[in-house]
Amino acid sequence: MKITQVRNATQLITYAGKRFLIDPMLAKKDAYPGFDGSARAKIRNPMVELPMSIDALLDVDAIIVTHTHLDHWDDAAVELIPKSQLIYVQNARDEELLRSQGFTQLRQLSATSFFDDIALIKTEGQHGSDEAYAIAELAERLGDACGIVFKHPTEKTLYLVGDSIWIDGIADNMRQYQPGVVIMNTGWAHLLRFGPIIFGLEDLLKAHNILPQAQIVATHMEAVNHCLVTRQSLLQYAQDNQLQAFVSAPYDGDSVTF
Amino acid sequence: MKITQVRNATQLITYAGKRFLIDPMLAKKDAYPGFDGSARAKIRNPMVELPMSIDALLDVDAIIVTHTHLDHWDDAAVELIPKSQLIYVQNARDEELLRSQGFTQLRQLSATSFFDDIALIKTEGQHGSDEAYAIAELAERLGDACGIVFKHPTEKTLYLVGDSIWIDGIADNMRQYQPGVVIMNTGWAHLLRFGPIIFGLEDLLKAHNILPQAQIVATHMEAVNHCLVTRQSLLQYAQDNQLQAFVSAPYDGDSVTF
Repeated sequence: MKITQVRNATQLITYAGKRFLIDPMLAKKDAYPGFDGSARAKIRNPMVELPMSIDALLDVDAIIVTHTHLDHWDDAAVELIPKSQLIYVQNARDEELLRSQGFTQLRQLSATSFFDDIALIKTEGQHGSDEAYAIAELAERLGDACGIVFKHPTEKTLYLVGDSIWIDGIADNMRQYQPGVVIMNTGWAHLLRFGPIIFGLEDLLKAHNILPQAQIVATHMEAVNHCLVTRQSLLQYAQDNQLQAFVSAPYDGDSVTF
Repeated sequence: MKITQVRNATQLITYAGKRFLIDPMLAKKDAYPGFDGSARAKIRNPMVELPMSIDALLDVDAIIVTHTHLDHWDDAAVELIPKSQLIYVQNARDEELLRSQGFTQLRQLSATSFFDDIALIKTEGQHGSDEAYAIAELAERLGDACGIVFKHPTEKTLYLVGDSIWIDGIADNMRQYQPGVVIMNTGWAHLLRFGPIIFGLEDLLKAHNILPQAQIVATHMEAVNHCLVTRQSLLQYAQDNQLQAFVSAPYDGDSVTF
């Protein structure tokens, strides 16, 4: 498989010969204000430009949208992606949203979803702390987010965990599916007062302890205002904890293959 | 009160007119190897020199040793501190150790201990994760560590939390004692595989959410090998989360007063 880091959580994944675009946020640098109520909200998003052309990004067999927050599915994606493009979404609500935006080829991820002979198994996430979800307005804003386990006889299993903090369900998935490659969104995005809503540094260690042979690809860093972990600090942490052989954090436009 | 950062967790605290020396690690730079099995163990300890003379450090009314790990109570402290110095320890085991080292004026901290009219209330800590304490050898090595609540009619209450990860008991103490000032050991010291054994960045946020008016003094950074949080990263985190008015991280030799 080949995983190309595009920007933020946007990635191109070639898996069993098929090309997937993950979580397209396609706007130009500074198109949107920072997320209200989050850390460093005065910084505009996205913080950097895309590293490749829209045409190169859209030359794919399917798109997967793990959830529809602006940094995973944005106005530019709605505008630029052909309405007949096959897109996988996490649930009926997101399907309805994308249908209202004009998209016609929508499929819901599930425990038994496939693209051709590639299993695309939907997994759970929790996009913030219990304290945050206890507040109705925040629970609505954080909403649902999913991950995907990719399985195919010719490839290692790939677990794209999606936007989540560490929860038991993720540990359970790692034990159950034994992925050889794990994509982790490690930017440690912070809401003011409520803290992290996605993984941070320590979650690398938790994943490695469960999957000591797996390769971890870290993404969702250095592109949106509220993410406080940089690639440099992540790679330093990996080295300090002797995980450097198992952790990569490709820069925008760079690829890793497994 | 005046809190002077010395080095690592070593501090001079003037409280209600009395001078306390906390957790003396008095060796010269590079005196000891890094902690075996911890992050960055090739770095020798302490990583920096003391910022003031031993005489200035020992001109105190009492010493408090929260626990006897080498970075809180070291060979140099044993050698340099007069054997008749009044020293508070956390329990019978540490009292026995210091007695065997020749110290004669030892008092155990407790729920009802005092120095003159200053209450020195012993509080609990947990010096690593449940997973670490589940391993007998590690549990023995990590051992017990305590904190202290200082109370006096003329001063704000001071909670020196000591070497601990975040546990419910600490939140409970914050709610019970409502300290105006909290000293937090935020160096995020890591054991390989087992992760943090003292506070890290996120714990600032947890403390602030419980005590929104309290001043937090961050210490135990940039002096021993396994601490991965620097003052600069901590102050940046505080600023990113709009806590900068409540957090200080004095450099060695610098003081804060409240």
